[in-house]
Amino acid sequence: MPDDAALIDLLAALAYGELSAFDRLAEDARMAPSLSGRAALAQMAAVEIGHYRLLAERLIALGASPEEAMAPFAPALERFHARTVPADWLEGLVKAYVGDGLAADFYREIADFVDPATRELILEVLADAGSAAFAVREVRAAIAAQPVLAGRLALWGRRLVGEAISQTQHVLAERDSLTTLLIKGTGDLAGVAALIKRITDRHSERMATLGLNG
Amino acid sequence: MPDDAALIDLLAALAYGELSAFDRLAEDARMAPSLSGRAALAQMAAVEIGHYRLLAERLIALGASPEEAMAPFAPALERFHARTVPADWLEGLVKAYVGDGLAADFYREIADFVDPATRELILEVLADAGSAAFAVREVRAAIAAQPVLAGRLALWGRRLVGEAISQTQHVLAERDSLTTLLIKGTGDLAGVAALIKRITDRHSERMATLGLNG
Repeated sequence: MPDDAALIDLLAALAYGELSAFDRLAEDARMAPSLSGRAALAQMAAVEIGHYRLLAERLIALGASPEEAMAPFAPALERFHARTVPADWLEGLVKAYVGDGLAADFYREIADFVDPATRELILEVLADAGSAAFAVREVRAAIAAQPVLAGRLALWGRRLVGEAISQTQHVLAERDSLTTLLIKGTGDLAGVAALIKRITDRHSERMATLGLNG
Repeated sequence: MPDDAALIDLLAALAYGELSAFDRLAEDARMAPSLSGRAALAQMAAVEIGHYRLLAERLIALGASPEEAMAPFAPALERFHARTVPADWLEGLVKAYVGDGLAADFYREIADFVDPATRELILEVLADAGSAAFAVREVRAAIAAQPVLAGRLALWGRRLVGEAISQTQHVLAERDSLTTLLIKGTGDLAGVAALIKRITDRHSERMATLGLNG
């Protein structure tokens, strides 16, 4: 079982991710072409904040200050968002769908390496806030109406996964506790490689679901 | 009892108010000097969206499209926000506290003129999302540390109430159903004047609570 430092790091990274997902969704909501689209994204943002609260409460129960525990993870997540600012509503939806999917796959893999109570919390906060079905519907409809969009959005998806992997590596390089958790959990570096392969395979499936070449 | 058109207008104005309060709080959260302040404002924003959903559901139950019903109220609320963009975190908190307070006082007065089920819904969505206590604590602490702030924030409060009254007049001038509801409810123009007096008195009390001259 990982020690408390690793658990705190894991939950704090996830908590900051929820806080920044809230920001991103709230901001993207303003690009919505309709009031109902805007309300839909705002409601997804609200779900992320509910998840944030659960994680912050668990951090406090573990004796950590959420603010201090999250601080080391802010730069990488802010860099990710700064480098992947959507140019329009559709890029925002692809980012919400692909980004949430990647993060969820990654944390679900890691959830296998921790105690049952922590695993249950992680799986709960990764539950889809309804964004997947909404994003898939809107993006597919847009591509059906304007097939030329597919090329740009496919490139965008590749950029998102590239930045996500790059920033995750930054975090792992700085947080020994998480690297140890990951390597011990997967067994060895070959296990880590297999995990990355599973995550990128699922990313390709999501791109295909959107009607895009991953 | 007011007719359905007036009820739909009332609920739609309130719904758009919640949607734009979400935006404002989500945006102001980014000015927070700490992660805990940012999370606090994001959580308040999430509460507003929960209220929005209740109002949208009631509009649908009344046979209205929330999107169409809200559209007439968007310009006035957007004008209000565009003319009262906070320059910093403290102005944002004063706006959240004073703006929510003014809106809540206004809708609570009108709630007396509608059927019990609608009144109950209105009172539920006006329930304080915790922003009052948070804003009062932060603003008072800031003024205690730096008394010179009080002058600027007092001016800011007066500008907020002026813009709120001005935009409310715009809305009433365009929506006969709401004007009729207000005049029938209060009895006559003297009744409307008394209502405005009660609302501005409560605004002055709120300013005093913040440690400011209203």
